[in-house]
Amino acid sequence: MKNNSNGLKLIEKLKEKSASYKVVDLYKRKIVVAWPDKLVENVIDDDVELKVRVSKPWQLASNEWKKDKTIVNVDGIEIGGRNIVVAAGPCAIEDEDIAIEIAKAVKKAGAKMFRGGAYKPRTSPYTFQGLGENGLKILRKVYEVVGLPIVTEVMDTRDVEKVASFAHMLQIGARNSQNFPLLREVGKAKKPVLLKRGMSMTTEEWLLAAEYILLESNGDVVLCERGIRTFEKNTRFTLDLAGLAYVKTVTHLPLAVDPSHPAGRRDLVEPLALAAIAAGADMLIVEVHIAPEKALSDSEQQLTISMFEELMKKLKMVAEALGRSI
Amino acid sequence: MKNNSNGLKLIEKLKEKSASYKVVDLYKRKIVVAWPDKLVENVIDDDVELKVRVSKPWQLASNEWKKDKTIVNVDGIEIGGRNIVVAAGPCAIEDEDIAIEIAKAVKKAGAKMFRGGAYKPRTSPYTFQGLGENGLKILRKVYEVVGLPIVTEVMDTRDVEKVASFAHMLQIGARNSQNFPLLREVGKAKKPVLLKRGMSMTTEEWLLAAEYILLESNGDVVLCERGIRTFEKNTRFTLDLAGLAYVKTVTHLPLAVDPSHPAGRRDLVEPLALAAIAAGADMLIVEVHIAPEKALSDSEQQLTISMFEELMKKLKMVAEALGRSI
Amino acid sequence: MKNNSNGLKLIEKLKEKSASYKVVDLYKRKIVVAWPDKLVENVIDDDVELKVRVSKPWQLASNEWKKDKTIVNVDGIEIGGRNIVVAAGPCAIEDEDIAIEIAKAVKKAGAKMFRGGAYKPRTSPYTFQGLGENGLKILRKVYEVVGLPIVTEVMDTRDVEKVASFAHMLQIGARNSQNFPLLREVGKAKKPVLLKRGMSMTTEEWLLAAEYILLESNGDVVLCERGIRTFEKNTRFTLDLAGLAYVKTVTHLPLAVDPSHPAGRRDLVEPLALAAIAAGADMLIVEVHIAPEKALSDSEQQLTISMFEELMKKLKMVAEALGRSI
Amino acid sequence: MKNNSNGLKLIEKLKEKSASYKVVDLYKRKIVVAWPDKLVENVIDDDVELKVRVSKPWQLASNEWKKDKTIVNVDGIEIGGRNIVVAAGPCAIEDEDIAIEIAKAVKKAGAKMFRGGAYKPRTSPYTFQGLGENGLKILRKVYEVVGLPIVTEVMDTRDVEKVASFAHMLQIGARNSQNFPLLREVGKAKKPVLLKRGMSMTTEEWLLAAEYILLESNGDVVLCERGIRTFEKNTRFTLDLAGLAYVKTVTHLPLAVDPSHPAGRRDLVEPLALAAIAAGADMLIVEVHIAPEKALSDSEQQLTISMFEELMKKLKMVAEALGRSI
Repeated sequence: MKNNSNGLKLIEKLKEKSASYKVVDLYKRKIVVAWPDKLVENVIDDDVELKVRVSKPWQLASNEWKKDKTIVNVDGIEIGGRNIVVAAGPCAIEDEDIAIEIAKAVKKAGAKMFRGGAYKPRTSPYTFQGLGENGLKILRKVYEVVGLPIVTEVMDTRDVEKVASFAHMLQIGARNSQNFPLLREVGKAKKPVLLKRGMSMTTEEWLLAAEYILLESNGDVVLCERGIRTFEKNTRFTLDLAGLAYVKTVTHLPLAVDPSHPAGRRDLVEPLALAAIAAGADMLIVEVHIAPEKALSDSEQQLTISMFEELMKKLKMVAEALGRSI
Repeated sequence: MKNNSNGLKLIEKLKEKSASYKVVDLYKRKIVVAWPDKLVENVIDDDVELKVRVSKPWQLASNEWKKDKTIVNVDGIEIGGRNIVVAAGPCAIEDEDIAIEIAKAVKKAGAKMFRGGAYKPRTSPYTFQGLGENGLKILRKVYEVVGLPIVTEVMDTRDVEKVASFAHMLQIGARNSQNFPLLREVGKAKKPVLLKRGMSMTTEEWLLAAEYILLESNGDVVLCERGIRTFEKNTRFTLDLAGLAYVKTVTHLPLAVDPSHPAGRRDLVEPLALAAIAAGADMLIVEVHIAPEKALSDSEQQLTISMFEELMKKLKMVAEALGRSI
Repeated sequence: MKNNSNGLKLIEKLKEKSASYKVVDLYKRKIVVAWPDKLVENVIDDDVELKVRVSKPWQLASNEWKKDKTIVNVDGIEIGGRNIVVAAGPCAIEDEDIAIEIAKAVKKAGAKMFRGGAYKPRTSPYTFQGLGENGLKILRKVYEVVGLPIVTEVMDTRDVEKVASFAHMLQIGARNSQNFPLLREVGKAKKPVLLKRGMSMTTEEWLLAAEYILLESNGDVVLCERGIRTFEKNTRFTLDLAGLAYVKTVTHLPLAVDPSHPAGRRDLVEPLALAAIAAGADMLIVEVHIAPEKALSDSEQQLTISMFEELMKKLKMVAEALGRSI
Repeated sequence: MKNNSNGLKLIEKLKEKSASYKVVDLYKRKIVVAWPDKLVENVIDDDVELKVRVSKPWQLASNEWKKDKTIVNVDGIEIGGRNIVVAAGPCAIEDEDIAIEIAKAVKKAGAKMFRGGAYKPRTSPYTFQGLGENGLKILRKVYEVVGLPIVTEVMDTRDVEKVASFAHMLQIGARNSQNFPLLREVGKAKKPVLLKRGMSMTTEEWLLAAEYILLESNGDVVLCERGIRTFEKNTRFTLDLAGLAYVKTVTHLPLAVDPSHPAGRRDLVEPLALAAIAAGADMLIVEVHIAPEKALSDSEQQLTISMFEELMKKLKMVAEALGRSI
């Protein structure tokens, strides 16, 4: 819409046509999304600055109307620009001292954000389920002491407000990637969102999941590839960098990769992380622990500090070869 | 535990060992589930009537300790016995008159339950999202007028209590099959649950999802196979009857099949429904509409009334050939 | 083409257009297949009895031009009619006496054909590779003594003639389902072919593989579903009966199911076999052994004789419920 | 075996035990492979220089006994060393002049080998099947004129000798990756082999396919990842770099990647090629054409010459960042 328009005239016209619509504030623009196509295509209004008919099922996530790449700002850290952002930390938060120690180490090695789970989606109810709110408090303490912004998962619509009050970026895990009420709720929370791809989600469904968040006027979405489920058994998941490369051609949103979960074992994290940035990832989220063998979850795939330091060196060299920094 | 034991002595011993445990009331037994194995295996207590060490990751869902098949009672309809239960109805509830008309027709053809979505998990935010609470009210009306118990999906932990007050059986959809807070919440609601298998869920993960519900002392769980995601494109999903047959060998819980979603088109529903009961399904859940071509969702795969009548006739013949009824 | 036409005039016209064509003798008709569409569509010729433009990528396998179901005759046994044909026998031929004993037992239980591998495609070179030509000789002996026609696999273009001289039906295994020279060669051999679906083959690719055989003027092709590869690990493969049901709607060729390989364990063979005929299979091919635990390959999934007898009883009852016999 | 031993004494002992064995000449060593483990483990012989019990199903392909990386020499070009080898050329050979023109252009841009199909495995019999022997002659001409060694596919055991007489490296395509007679035949041909991974092949099966070739005393095998089949539809296949990274940890054989087939469209080839070398590939095989839109097969995914030049520049920079050259 044009600058001072409240869009009311347009909405009136859409109502006349019985079209569906939603008014969205996104990237400092006021946007009226209206559908279905056949009802909307001939609606004309003077207050409309630009009318775009997007050819893909995803509308707001498409780069057909927004040609510049979106940069998501997480407490001052910019994701989607020339610099590649690395978030690192343990799978789950288990202890404050350990968390702080890890955070200091990964920060020193070049990480710009801290990751760690307080609420853990676990396949079995008989495994460690995370510390919950106590985990969130530890994460906040890590931020205060070490200064790295926090990304952590939220699993329940009832917890979104609470998690948002502790963390800087809300993670939607693979198992909740089509939990539509939760997607709407993190949209409303107006915090940056790291949206993991579900393990059997098509790239189209992934973009449509982002669309649920964008439609709540929250444009700060980073799409995170973390491996899909296939028949191959010697790795935990199959990292789909072809899918990532495809998505990059159709969206303005930044793209992240989690190399730890597809690897499933720490010696495969490095080649996958390097491949991810070579394929165009804007962000990496890596599991690191000072003593992985003692971790209560995913102990096989968390890097040691020295492995992470080594990885960061190589990432920097490849990033520079590609005209980026880290 | 023995009849009058509150299990407190046993729990004391488990605490001493730092073992995890949960006290569960299930199938008219008081059960103390304790883990991990290595801490628990030598704990002995006089109040324990029977101690079972289950070899599978799923404990309460296993038929190693409960050898009789569980029969889930939904408002008088028994699922898991000799009789095969067919639930039928439209994909989504759109209108009260249409819903009642469909319910009458499917009841006449032999359906024992009514299905229909009020809350619809839709891949795209731009498609019909269901009537929500109004849909629930229509479903209740259908029950009052036609007398078929209602199964309908719940998607949000905040809605469980409300949906449970309208419906007789709560459905967990494929996309929420690993939404663990939701699984716990429907467990607490103490209503029968139809737990759909996720589209990339292994049979092991499916049983562990059921375990989350059973651990809340809710034993009325029916496992529903509805197709998994594969490379094959001429059907919507790949119905995994081998997975169903496997699960039947390891659990006491009844098994359902949804033949409509894997088919994706109505002419394939009949062969899949027949195959499902031949493979051992205790229940079918079938999409039926008086005018499928006008439905707002899944119009391609909903059966017409006459197709459903024809299907029921064939199902009866095959069921009888297998020593069952319908 | 009309009865007495050699099609030469038509071919002349196709050559003028630079179209590709092939003259095929199939089902007692002379057919000129010509492509691509855009060069062919306006070619008219008096000698053409019927011109069909098939909408699918597979032409000869389509039921758009041949609306009656094809019945494949294997040494007097008809596959594709009202009667469902069961082929049974060991995974691999290991010994003449054992083979004959199994053949007698499965014949008594109602099997109409004998299966057994002489050439075995084995994942590892360190496992039993089959007896080769000696295995073929044993198979021939089984036929002479017991009277069941033989179906066995051929793996190498150089062996087709030899295998065809011993067996009544040539099996193309899953791993060779897109071995195009082999498909052409079994087409030329003019023996009935059992074409297994590859483990990652789409239904479209399966029908196109059959097309290679049909184009060699060999119309005696039975399509055999045997499970596709998915992430599920508690069964060996995922039997795709939805795919089978789909293919049945688009082809005139008969359909078989191998329930043994997807099961991967003998207790799952029965439910899958029952499901297969309920879904519409015209033929089953089942692994049976008098002493499965001693078999050199697939020992886990071969049925005992008594399990097979039990299976045949149930199959008969379900077949009759569906208006068929066995 | 020790230098001058013919291994006869050892073989005598293996025969006594009824063990299976094969004598192999590989990497300038004489090796006796014997199995199964339980018969072999206590066999001792003085002529044995080194006895290795490999823990994996693949024996000769394992890096447990051969710790140095194998370098495969193709007409002077070394694959598996510090230098990353790029093979480039059209999908299929269609015309001599065009082939030579492409070869000159890719050579100038830095390619070290020429690829191009004479025998084409095509899903449909109605599409271009390759020029066959004429294609081989053109490939030879390209070698004579331009000087790039040739890699081309062989599909039929009967053609191996002929193809080997024209080409420098024999390609086994994805559809023939478990065509065991063909694997043995290219093993016997003693030419370097590019073994593509099947589209539903596990990494274990891939290594066992290589084992068939190695057992024929042909150690010049390069394993080529080219994408596996998954549910994702916006790319043609899912490139499995996690699988590649895993295989690299267990074998001494060099690894190649084909980024063109998984991409399925030319704009995705570059990110996948970059990712492949970042993940550790020793070789790339890329489809390039002077006029891709006119190509008779795979026209969507072939790079233009200028795209290939651009790709080579970026590949060089990333290779150097990783301590390699190109």
